[in-house]
Amino acid sequence: MNSRPAAASLDQWILQQIYQATGRPPIRLRTASGAEVAPANSPPLGEIRISDRVTLGRLILDPEIAFGDAYSSGRLEVQGDLVSMLEALAMVMPPVEQQNTWARFVSRWMSWAQADTLTGARRNIHQHYDLGNDFYRLWLDPQMIYSCAYFPSPDATLEAAQEAKMEHICRKLRLRPGERVADIGSGWGTLALHMAARHGVHVSGFNISREQIAAARQRADKMGLSGRVEFIEADYRDIRGQFDAFVSVGMLEHVGRPYLKDMGRAIHRMLDTSGRGLLHFIGRNHREPMSPWIRKRIFPGTYLPTVREVLESLEPGDFSVLDVENLRPHYARTLEHWLERFEESAGVVAGQFGPEFVRTWRLYLASAIAGFRTGRLQLFQVLFARGGWHDYPWTRAHLYEAGVHEEGRPSKPQPH
Amino acid sequence: MNSRPAAASLDQWILQQIYQATGRPPIRLRTASGAEVAPANSPPLGEIRISDRVTLGRLILDPEIAFGDAYSSGRLEVQGDLVSMLEALAMVMPPVEQQNTWARFVSRWMSWAQADTLTGARRNIHQHYDLGNDFYRLWLDPQMIYSCAYFPSPDATLEAAQEAKMEHICRKLRLRPGERVADIGSGWGTLALHMAARHGVHVSGFNISREQIAAARQRADKMGLSGRVEFIEADYRDIRGQFDAFVSVGMLEHVGRPYLKDMGRAIHRMLDTSGRGLLHFIGRNHREPMSPWIRKRIFPGTYLPTVREVLESLEPGDFSVLDVENLRPHYARTLEHWLERFEESAGVVAGQFGPEFVRTWRLYLASAIAGFRTGRLQLFQVLFARGGWHDYPWTRAHLYEAGVHEEGRPSKPQPH
Repeated sequence: MNSRPAAASLDQWILQQIYQATGRPPIRLRTASGAEVAPANSPPLGEIRISDRVTLGRLILDPEIAFGDAYSSGRLEVQGDLVSMLEALAMVMPPVEQQNTWARFVSRWMSWAQADTLTGARRNIHQHYDLGNDFYRLWLDPQMIYSCAYFPSPDATLEAAQEAKMEHICRKLRLRPGERVADIGSGWGTLALHMAARHGVHVSGFNISREQIAAARQRADKMGLSGRVEFIEADYRDIRGQFDAFVSVGMLEHVGRPYLKDMGRAIHRMLDTSGRGLLHFIGRNHREPMSPWIRKRIFPGTYLPTVREVLESLEPGDFSVLDVENLRPHYARTLEHWLERFEESAGVVAGQFGPEFVRTWRLYLASAIAGFRTGRLQLFQVLFARGGWHDYPWTRAHLYEAGVHEEGRPSKPQPH
Repeated sequence: MNSRPAAASLDQWILQQIYQATGRPPIRLRTASGAEVAPANSPPLGEIRISDRVTLGRLILDPEIAFGDAYSSGRLEVQGDLVSMLEALAMVMPPVEQQNTWARFVSRWMSWAQADTLTGARRNIHQHYDLGNDFYRLWLDPQMIYSCAYFPSPDATLEAAQEAKMEHICRKLRLRPGERVADIGSGWGTLALHMAARHGVHVSGFNISREQIAAARQRADKMGLSGRVEFIEADYRDIRGQFDAFVSVGMLEHVGRPYLKDMGRAIHRMLDTSGRGLLHFIGRNHREPMSPWIRKRIFPGTYLPTVREVLESLEPGDFSVLDVENLRPHYARTLEHWLERFEESAGVVAGQFGPEFVRTWRLYLASAIAGFRTGRLQLFQVLFARGGWHDYPWTRAHLYEAGVHEEGRPSKPQPH
């Protein structure tokens, strides 16, 4: 008769510890055994229900990984708006480097185990990007662009915003017909094909995701662009050849902190004396490891650099920084679109990959929205150039001229 | 009879050494004794005439300082377009850290002797900015803005471009009536007065140049803005109080490398949780000391930071980088205007300060033009904010809307 209250009061104690360790979020925590902790001064945003003591113990030991895994397995349920609750958590929860010894150890061990060496990077990229093109087709835009869009206004469609993002990048780089462009981490090839079709450049797209390369080559064939766009399975460290322009969208995150200088060296080698380049990446305000759960389940080997670290890697190449733009709210908006589409296809995804996979991906997309909304995540575009590039315009007004490119072509997407 | 040819051939040998050490510029070097070195494969851009052996010896020992001092004293004359020849030199001449031991030693000794401590900074600033407001009035625009202008088009007047620069900064900061702004290094007060008059903010201008402060206060009185603009004689390290926005134009160059982190800390203290700031400064692509002659004769204690170093100093404040813009060609254009006006007043300046002073300042302005044209110098505007600032617009298009501010006011200067 006495054991149940004792169990409940142990759970209550553990719950209190968890509540403290996560920074006292405005959320009610509850266990199946009846323990409960709630914010003292305000109504909670929602409720987190934890089904069992093992999960409770794991939450104490390594809050981020345990939360993610328990959410995925269903041993932890969230009642209320998931994104808002994750936002609240993002605002109060200490970063992993300020968590307990075990959590810090796991985070560091993962950095080592998932290191983005030549073989490690292939394994890491394969795990995420080779889930099958059909899966991504369910919730990305039809052109399959898996990076932050650029919304000329917040109510633009995702399709228009992805098109606008590509044009924004092309305008920044001021591509000229006949130029050679290296696109590192070329995904399903959309940007490479866009640049070739709309700006008349020759593009070499580099990627280490086999599934993406195959799909991109098919698209180039179908669009009759195989002569001007090639997709090459190669690590950035192995690229030889020189280019007029370098572009990399959503790939720097996968380079890993110890290898940023290698990336800088690769860019240095690739660009000739009148070259310029653009890096588009998720970054941070200060040095901090990526969420351990995201690294464990979603993006192994990921490190989100600061602008400072990126400039440090570029410095030996004597590049001039020309333009840095922060598009943080645009990624929150992009992810809102993706999550909405993902939820619409949740049944299909569950049928293919199971309900646990659906919950894992829901949590990933929702926590990314929360990260961008709260500023734990930032989205940077960094434009840089060699001293010999003289085509940089007098002001940036040309980026904002509506309707026409500088070349006088319409900016509305051409069918291709 | 033999001594003259021997003397000439020694000069010839020294001249050869100088030609090598300066990177074989496309310039003819000639001595009064008849020695001559000229580029082998192309007609020279112009000629440098050196009057005596002592100057020759100094040029070997410390090329930059000797060149500047000999040009000032008239022991070295330049035939041809001074700016073009300095451009050519800037492109081939090794930086001081790759020059001989003596030149490196002098450069480092100066860094130490001119350190921007609390008292050192006052001495350094006094030496340049307290030359007398009348002197600067001769060749700056009537509003006395001594920093890079922003030319909406290259043929804009200097006056319009300085006005446009102030508005460009105000738009980036999105000033709202009633907000408190700290302007660090407020010069003759023009930006502070502009912000108060045109954007209705309260400005505290901080400066350690006594002459500038006095002139700025007079202007505030005259414009009836003393109630909303105060000019305070204080070092950035001593500023207390919190502000909504921070701005510093052309002051970071005087902070000195060892003190950049102090500047970062000062900004951190000054800005509250919804604060934002803008740094406008001459910078570099990579870490490198400022020209020793410029530090000796023009700007003691100056260090031109890289964007990376600036971001490093801001990082502990957990600021988000929002926008970095490179306005390098705009400073070349600004300096062309200044040099032209300076030459028009050269007679007046010579009457007041002597012909040597005129040559010194001509060389300073001309070598700055060369530095910006060749990319040895860069001009950066860095916009950053606390996470709690939510007024950052969806895109940067608002910076380029012609004719109207977002508030619907005309962007043409109002008389004040």
